[in-house]
Amino acid sequence: MAAVLGGDRVAVARAISLVENELPDGETLLHDLFPHTGRAYRIGITGPPGAGKSTLTNKLALHYRREGRTVGVLAVDPTSPFTGGAVLGDRVRMHDVELDAGVFIRSMASRGSLGGLSKTTAEAADVLDAAGMDLILMETVGVGQSELDIARAADTTIVVLVPESGDAVQAMKAGLMEIADVFVMNKSDRSGADQAMQALITILGLRQRTAPAPPVLATVAPEGKGVDDVADAVRVHRESLQAHGGLLQKRRERLENRITELVVGRVRKQLWTPERRALLQRGADEIIRGTRTPYDVAHELVETF
Amino acid sequence: MAAVLGGDRVAVARAISLVENELPDGETLLHDLFPHTGRAYRIGITGPPGAGKSTLTNKLALHYRREGRTVGVLAVDPTSPFTGGAVLGDRVRMHDVELDAGVFIRSMASRGSLGGLSKTTAEAADVLDAAGMDLILMETVGVGQSELDIARAADTTIVVLVPESGDAVQAMKAGLMEIADVFVMNKSDRSGADQAMQALITILGLRQRTAPAPPVLATVAPEGKGVDDVADAVRVHRESLQAHGGLLQKRRERLENRITELVVGRVRKQLWTPERRALLQRGADEIIRGTRTPYDVAHELVETF
Repeated sequence: MAAVLGGDRVAVARAISLVENELPDGETLLHDLFPHTGRAYRIGITGPPGAGKSTLTNKLALHYRREGRTVGVLAVDPTSPFTGGAVLGDRVRMHDVELDAGVFIRSMASRGSLGGLSKTTAEAADVLDAAGMDLILMETVGVGQSELDIARAADTTIVVLVPESGDAVQAMKAGLMEIADVFVMNKSDRSGADQAMQALITILGLRQRTAPAPPVLATVAPEGKGVDDVADAVRVHRESLQAHGGLLQKRRERLENRITELVVGRVRKQLWTPERRALLQRGADEIIRGTRTPYDVAHELVETF
Repeated sequence: MAAVLGGDRVAVARAISLVENELPDGETLLHDLFPHTGRAYRIGITGPPGAGKSTLTNKLALHYRREGRTVGVLAVDPTSPFTGGAVLGDRVRMHDVELDAGVFIRSMASRGSLGGLSKTTAEAADVLDAAGMDLILMETVGVGQSELDIARAADTTIVVLVPESGDAVQAMKAGLMEIADVFVMNKSDRSGADQAMQALITILGLRQRTAPAPPVLATVAPEGKGVDDVADAVRVHRESLQAHGGLLQKRRERLENRITELVVGRVRKQLWTPERRALLQRGADEIIRGTRTPYDVAHELVETF
């Protein structure tokens, strides 16, 4: 644990592997590290496949490094097995920051994870937090509920769109409107970018009445264009959260979700005592014979608690 | 319920909406319908985005209709909000079977679902099963754990790849090797298709030692090429399952998973009694003050069961 707290890269990598593989030692370690967390600022970066999230993440990491801050990057992409080429390409572009000791980059590949990707990612972020990273960038493709949960587990969430990734209505349907603190229209040098930005701003203006609408920023990530603006918008959002007690409230909500997930996970693990397993087996037999339904049997099992 | 059993389209659509929105009436209905399920054969169709799953599903539905069998189609695509154009395009091509009374097509759009997409899809399949559909095609993009779970909930699982969707090693990483009963190399008129098929067959031959390797079939779905072969491979797999008691075993395993999910879902719902909520609140306060960790608090909560 001391090695993780000291920021030892090998120890940090090992700790994240423990967490990722959901080994029993992992939970003990997380428990011990927890008092040392809470200092890092967590930034979620999400959006559709091909929006250029990895490049933007890379450029943001570089930006923060130039300010002298340490950066942890967690790249979660459950679709990557299909697009290995693209992901590898993106990671190659990560190269320029990779050898810098102030950056720790990790791909999360826990699609088979029992506890869910969002739990594992939040725990890996805890490890990086305890290891002294100032900022943690959590990059995930926004295709499923668990990926949205990862983004939601950040202090500030950046949603990256491209002119072609469909209009604002589609981002709305995907639940991205609700989680975005900052919108980025990447590849903004492409045709249709202005219209796409305008449409987004219009819809945001219609929807958000109580709070100010999140900013919509234009970037061309490979050239680094607009990246300073994104970092600036993150800073403004962070300051506004801190000024209004929003950061503490956000972290408290996350804490409650975290505890709920831990409790449900433990219940799930402890569920199948020999007695309940026998009930389940008998229930399954009866369902197959047509005398009961899964709903009956589940009810009976819940009653044993 | 009688209307659903009679195959009334409006009643079936309404029942699926109840299930999809996780309304309390939905569970009562599912309980009542359950004794009438088990007759339909469930086929999962999965693969990377852009593999042509929708077109293949459409052509398979047509194939089965020509045999005089009724077909339910559940299209689950959590990525669709980003690719509305493509999905709409695919659905337009569904047009030719859509107006046929022997086909029921439904898109599942429950990315916010509490119980998970796989639970909701299995339950929607139950509704179609009770409504008298002979075959249920469950189409989902294989990008996340819950989408793989949907495919796994089928009697026969078809994995659709295209020459460009990466090599067999990548399909292996994505967990598709484990779930495939039939492999389809779609768009097999493209260059590289033969090599991609050969690579897949080689790897399958290396991996599967006890059971025969799943067949690898070539299709060009928009032209209907190879679709009869796919239907044939499904039939062969079905007969082999039935001959060896595998179908019953598969369904029994699914039943046990289903019950587990129901129990965990109910525990989750009943978790927050006023007493436990008070424990949680106090625990969160103490964690924020730095005197406890989420792991302590979760442990204390589990002890109250």
